[in-house]
Amino acid sequence: MATLDDFYSIIPAGGTGSRLWPLSRADAPKFLHDLTGSGKTLLRATYDRLTPLSGTGRTMVVTGRAHRAAVEAQIPELEDANIVLEADPRDSTVAVALAAAILRRREPDVIVGSFAADHVIADERAFRRVTAEAVAAARAGYIATIGITPTEPAIGFGYIRAGDSVGVADAPRAAIVREFVEKPSAQVAQRYLDEGDYLWNAGMFIARADVLLAELAAEEPELAAQIEELAEAWDEPARRGPAVDRIWPQLQKIAIDYSVAEPAAARGRMVVVPGDFDWDDVGDFSAVAKLHNNGRRGRLAILGSEGTVLADSASGIVVSQSKRIVSVVGIHDVVVVDTPDALLVTTTDNAQRVKQVVDAVRRSGNTDAL
Amino acid sequence: MATLDDFYSIIPAGGTGSRLWPLSRADAPKFLHDLTGSGKTLLRATYDRLTPLSGTGRTMVVTGRAHRAAVEAQIPELEDANIVLEADPRDSTVAVALAAAILRRREPDVIVGSFAADHVIADERAFRRVTAEAVAAARAGYIATIGITPTEPAIGFGYIRAGDSVGVADAPRAAIVREFVEKPSAQVAQRYLDEGDYLWNAGMFIARADVLLAELAAEEPELAAQIEELAEAWDEPARRGPAVDRIWPQLQKIAIDYSVAEPAAARGRMVVVPGDFDWDDVGDFSAVAKLHNNGRRGRLAILGSEGTVLADSASGIVVSQSKRIVSVVGIHDVVVVDTPDALLVTTTDNAQRVKQVVDAVRRSGNTDAL
Repeated sequence: MATLDDFYSIIPAGGTGSRLWPLSRADAPKFLHDLTGSGKTLLRATYDRLTPLSGTGRTMVVTGRAHRAAVEAQIPELEDANIVLEADPRDSTVAVALAAAILRRREPDVIVGSFAADHVIADERAFRRVTAEAVAAARAGYIATIGITPTEPAIGFGYIRAGDSVGVADAPRAAIVREFVEKPSAQVAQRYLDEGDYLWNAGMFIARADVLLAELAAEEPELAAQIEELAEAWDEPARRGPAVDRIWPQLQKIAIDYSVAEPAAARGRMVVVPGDFDWDDVGDFSAVAKLHNNGRRGRLAILGSEGTVLADSASGIVVSQSKRIVSVVGIHDVVVVDTPDALLVTTTDNAQRVKQVVDAVRRSGNTDAL
Repeated sequence: MATLDDFYSIIPAGGTGSRLWPLSRADAPKFLHDLTGSGKTLLRATYDRLTPLSGTGRTMVVTGRAHRAAVEAQIPELEDANIVLEADPRDSTVAVALAAAILRRREPDVIVGSFAADHVIADERAFRRVTAEAVAAARAGYIATIGITPTEPAIGFGYIRAGDSVGVADAPRAAIVREFVEKPSAQVAQRYLDEGDYLWNAGMFIARADVLLAELAAEEPELAAQIEELAEAWDEPARRGPAVDRIWPQLQKIAIDYSVAEPAAARGRMVVVPGDFDWDDVGDFSAVAKLHNNGRRGRLAILGSEGTVLADSASGIVVSQSKRIVSVVGIHDVVVVDTPDALLVTTTDNAQRVKQVVDAVRRSGNTDAL
């Protein structure tokens, strides 16, 4: 498959992944870890997955100032023009729309696609095929998303209800988005799976930059104007800093789901292309264990090899990030995350509760460990 | 209760307690830890329990040369004459009989009692009352032991089958030992509990030193002679070293159960006094958890306070010996032992299997951590 000449990838690399604490930290967030054992961080794997689509040098990374060095270490070939440093995090609308606005000024007809820095996709060919359809739909003026075909009644994801095909040539599977729905209960998730027209929302958005920004302007005119103002000054070194200093503190924090995707769906401007490839947002250690154990229970995954891991009748996952001996005996579906300054012991079934521990660590005053 | 003028306590302080790894180590064995949260190490607590019985300055500690400084730090008042340093470990017969032989040369009619350095007894008054009976039986020429009245069908202890009373004045409950039996199966342990004449073998032996040594001489004449030779030179500084150098390497390793207790029982010379007090040899982390949680499940005991322990829906025990944050979430009957160089994660039901981990650590070459 050839690269898509009018396409540009955006990777918003933010969020700490607090359900992956103590592996994921403020200064070493999820996207800077190799959670699959591939030898690549999630960020690097995302970058490498997108390059065949948008072409070399046509991927922009949006990240926090604190992560600049780490991002550059992961992607040494990333040009300065392709890194957008956020003064502080302002949620996904600012991250994606600012990148889109900067790119549109450079390339008025550009189609942008935004893909999280910390998701895992095994079948890259299928991903490229589906994304090419989404780009074709975007070329036709839609805002496109990729909805993952569910393989189980997951309660950890939002869902997209697909409607009829929109009949775009080169995007035969692109269907109108009837609605976005929030994370469901187990019962509702089972119904979604049975009904067959619900897809997982993987947070991937593909659109012409001008279409995306017009949708934003219709829903959030003030934010859209501030973003345009920033973008207009961005590529002039003497003007960028003052513009950021003046505008950034005022920027509204709002997820792109609310500022663009849902309003666009309500206006019939949003399509979804079903993605029938394995996808995971690796939201907690249960997901990490599953990835490593190929979905099979009863195995013990070992992530990292700083120390010596000794196991006897154990399954689940051990993350070894200290130089210690970690021994796990007679315990199943366990999660042990061993780092130099913090240890987590839980089970895969309780992996979602780690966020509460992070809150407890914050309350205990050990903020260095966050 | 007055002290018993003719009585002398012996504390063999040996063994590493490998089922308590990684808390208990070769260089920090079980008896040097406070496993009860009393603020005292098990050795110190044992010493303090015996002083009211044998009197101040009348307790002898037998330990390895490597532990001399640690023992003296625990018992600063211990006189040089009351510490016997072993060149290397030679099992319990050498430890107890050498101490007995040294004491007999100093005090021919002395009654000695040997009590492990790493057991836990809560009711000290009951212990003293029962031990006083054992001393009375010893004064009458018997080798006495204390058998703990079982409270459950334990499979981790050996048992003593008690027979008829021997009718010693001042030792009304002293009964002949019909037999010593090894650790039973669960089924047999239940039968022992139901039958009512079986007691737990707590490894406590009380006898006139000369009686004990005569029993040993009858069963193991060569070992008894070597021990006498050592004892004869012991209190002469110029002669002790050469005697140890010459004799120690030849000393047979044999448990006192086999060299003295069982043969004496077979000859009808062994009595048992039932001890109806709480006693535990704290053999594994399940026992440590039980001690801390007052036998109740569903609680999380925290031993040590080097780091910060955060728990949410967790029970069992956390031993915190590093300065790290230890977080335990949604996991029951767990055992987490966090030390600077090694971590153990298991469950109370698997606590006995820790010994196998120690073997695995040895095979992995990480012997520094043992």
